Amino acid sequence: MRRFVVIGQRALASPEFSLNDLPSSSGRLDVLVRCLRAALMVSHGLRRDTLVYLVFKGGAHAPKVVRFAGAAARYLRPDERSLALMVQRALASVPAGQAGLVSYKPGIDVGVGGLELVRAEPDAAPVYVLDERGRDVREVPLDPGGVFYVGDHLGFDPATRAELEERGALAISVGPTSIHAEDALAVLVNELDRALPPALEPA
Amino acid sequence: MRRFVVIGQRALASPEFSLNDLPSSSGRLDVLVRCLRAALMVSHGLRRDTLVYLVFKGGAHAPKVVRFAGAAARYLRPDERSLALMVQRALASVPAGQAGLVSYKPGIDVGVGGLELVRAEPDAAPVYVLDERGRDVREVPLDPGGVFYVGDHLGFDPATRAELEERGALAISVGPTSIHAEDALAVLVNELDRALPPALEPA
Repeated sequence: MRRFVVIGQRALASPEFSLNDLPSSSGRLDVLVRCLRAALMVSHGLRRDTLVYLVFKGGAHAPKVVRFAGAAARYLRPDERSLALMVQRALASVPAGQAGLVSYKPGIDVGVGGLELVRAEPDAAPVYVLDERGRDVREVPLDPGGVFYVGDHLGFDPATRAELEERGALAISVGPTSIHAEDALAVLVNELDRALPPALEPA
Repeated sequence: MRRFVVIGQRALASPEFSLNDLPSSSGRLDVLVRCLRAALMVSHGLRRDTLVYLVFKGGAHAPKVVRFAGAAARYLRPDERSLALMVQRALASVPAGQAGLVSYKPGIDVGVGGLELVRAEPDAAPVYVLDERGRDVREVPLDPGGVFYVGDHLGFDPATRAELEERGALAISVGPTSIHAEDALAVLVNELDRALPPALEPA
């Protein structure tokens, strides 16, 4: 299973944001849902072998995690507004004090908590982190079953950096240009596809 | 100069669509603006050496072209809604019967017409077309000053295919998976960056 963990440093963990102005009102949920699309979606379907965790670290109700599973999710549209609406409803559905991830819809789970919700899952996979100073993805062996951490436009907060260090994350980069996180994911996913063509699922 | 030509087979050439439902109301402008972002934008800036042509072939007022120039455009936000609003206003600004591309704003030009508006520009550059059956971008020499044609979720219409054949377009592909056009562009642009690191411009 491929896993991607996208950290939204200021992404609001509560649903009080406007779909009509995601960049200013949501703490850049637009970045997170573009990362979700790039990691999870293919032409006419989803990647069955992929989990995407969006981590919301912004606002009074943070942190929360919303997890998308390509093998089970249905009716996802690729545009930002549709994906943001799905996230908004998932964030609104979780009761305060809920322990662990709970199902919002098939293939979409949500929980109150941060990276401990990601780490709680059975895991002996190698950990990678996208980092412009890391080693070129074309020059390191990539485990298609790895866990890949991605920062938003702000990079990573100190707690996430400490977690990555503790897990021995290998820093990897995707080329000579400083590009958007979602584009880096598209390039990384392409590299993984070239190593091991993926299982797909009609949408 | 890198040039990308994104063909929207049903993308509405008139501005009568809703920003609240781009996929259903605009003929998939959401796909076009995601391609625009992937081709033109980097972290905290634009690519100075890049032109992106969006070709609108849908509706009664088609075709139209909106061209973005990274060297001159300003104040572009990367989210779909902001880019779609910019396109909507550009489409509304052009008088019927206008000949050639005219300026809407610095770095954004618009014109009534189709691929002839792209071809009218001085051009001896090689032409490429993204095509899943094409040769792997890692196995062909790519001219970073080429013209790259990209289809939307529907591929290409017969007139565009004829134009590409006439121009001797080389079909290129980006890997083993059928992915979204915007992801294919991210991978292609990465390949071009690896061949020739780009000039960038703060946003």
